[in-house]
Amino acid sequence: MTANTENDARGDGSAGGARTRLSPEQRRSQLLDLGVRLLAHRSLDELSIDLLAEEAGISRGLLYHYFGNKHAFHEAVVRRAADDLIAQTAPPVEGEPLERLLVSTTAYLDYVEANFEGYLSLVKGAAGGNDTLREIYEEARSALTDRIFREDAQGGILPDTAASRLVVRGWAAMTEELVLTWVQDPGGVSREELVAMIAGALPALVATLPGSAGER
Amino acid sequence: MTANTENDARGDGSAGGARTRLSPEQRRSQLLDLGVRLLAHRSLDELSIDLLAEEAGISRGLLYHYFGNKHAFHEAVVRRAADDLIAQTAPPVEGEPLERLLVSTTAYLDYVEANFEGYLSLVKGAAGGNDTLREIYEEARSALTDRIFREDAQGGILPDTAASRLVVRGWAAMTEELVLTWVQDPGGVSREELVAMIAGALPALVATLPGSAGER
Repeated sequence: MTANTENDARGDGSAGGARTRLSPEQRRSQLLDLGVRLLAHRSLDELSIDLLAEEAGISRGLLYHYFGNKHAFHEAVVRRAADDLIAQTAPPVEGEPLERLLVSTTAYLDYVEANFEGYLSLVKGAAGGNDTLREIYEEARSALTDRIFREDAQGGILPDTAASRLVVRGWAAMTEELVLTWVQDPGGVSREELVAMIAGALPALVATLPGSAGER
Repeated sequence: MTANTENDARGDGSAGGARTRLSPEQRRSQLLDLGVRLLAHRSLDELSIDLLAEEAGISRGLLYHYFGNKHAFHEAVVRRAADDLIAQTAPPVEGEPLERLLVSTTAYLDYVEANFEGYLSLVKGAAGGNDTLREIYEEARSALTDRIFREDAQGGILPDTAASRLVVRGWAAMTEELVLTWVQDPGGVSREELVAMIAGALPALVATLPGSAGER
C-alpha cells in the first residue's frame, strides 16, 4: 500500500518502464499534487506532514527539507490548489460570452465538488482571518473575476467601471455561496438549473447598473 | 468619565430625577447594550470582561455574576447585536415591494456602517468555524431572508421554492460582500447607487429562475 502510493507520488507514469530520476523541483511539485489530492476529502487542519509522509512513502525529514515547516507546506499546497482552480475554470477561447460563462461556471462547480473539503477549508480560513490563506484566496478570486473584464475572455459583457467591478465581486460571493450550499444539499435544484442560475445572474446584475445596456 | 459611563450604563434616563432601582434582567440588558455599543469600533476579540467592567464602572466579579464567563458574555452580546440588526432592518409595513426592499437595504447598510468592527468580527467568526457565532449568524440571516417570503412583507416578489430560496441565499451573500467591501472602500460608487444595485439585484436574479415571472 505504502509502496504503491509512493509509486503514485513519484508518478513516473511509465507502465512497466524504468524509473526516471526526478529533479528536486519535480519531486516537490509531485508532493504538492499529492497534498492537493489529499485535500479533496480533508480540511487543511487535517493535512499533516505525517500524513503526507505516509502517503508519499518518504520520511518526515525529507518533507521538512522540501517545505521547511508545516505552515509553509500548507501555503504551498493551497497555492497549488488555487492554481489548479484557476487553470481548470479557464473559459473556452471562442464562443458567445454567456456560453463561455456557462462552461467556466460548470468547471468551477466540478472543481468544488471534487475538492470540497480542501476548498471549504480555504474559504473558511480566508474568511476567518488567516492572512496567508486570505491572500491566496483573494489572488485566486481576482484571477477568476479579472477574466470577465478581459477582451479575449468575456469581452462585451461588461464595461470596466468601479460599479461593475463591485457587481462582479458580489456575483463571485454569491456564486461561492450557491455552490457551497448546493454541493452540501441540492434541495430540489438540478445541476443544470444551478449553473444556469449562476451564469444568468451576471448579465442580470449588470443590467441593474446605472448606464448599463439593460437601462439604455 | 467612569462615573458618567456608569450612569449611562445604568441608563435611568430621568433628567435630574431619582435613580430607579433596576431588576437584574434590566441591568443585564443594559450591560448587553453597552457591550454592543463597544463592538461598534472593536472586534469581538477586543471586547473583554475587563473593558466592559471599566466602561460600566462595575466590578469584574459582578459581570461574571451576570454572564458566567467570557464565552457566554460574547454569545449574549452577539445575540443582542443580531437582534438589533433584525429589528433595525425591518421593512416598512406598507408600500411597493421594491420600495420596502430599498428601505430595508438602506437600514442594513446603516447598521453595518455604525457597527462595522463588531459586525465584521461576527461574519469572520461565523465563516471561520466558531460554532456559536455561526449559529447566531445563520439565525440572523434566516430572519432577514425569511421576510422576503412572507406575505406581509415583500409578498408578491417571490414564489417560495427550493430554487428561489437558493437565489435569496446567494443574494444575501452578495449583499454582505458588497456592503462590507463598499464601507471599507466605496471606490467611485455612491451610496444611492449601492443601495439601488442591491435592491434591484433581487428581482433581477429572480427573473433568471426557471418559470419565474420574468420568463413567463
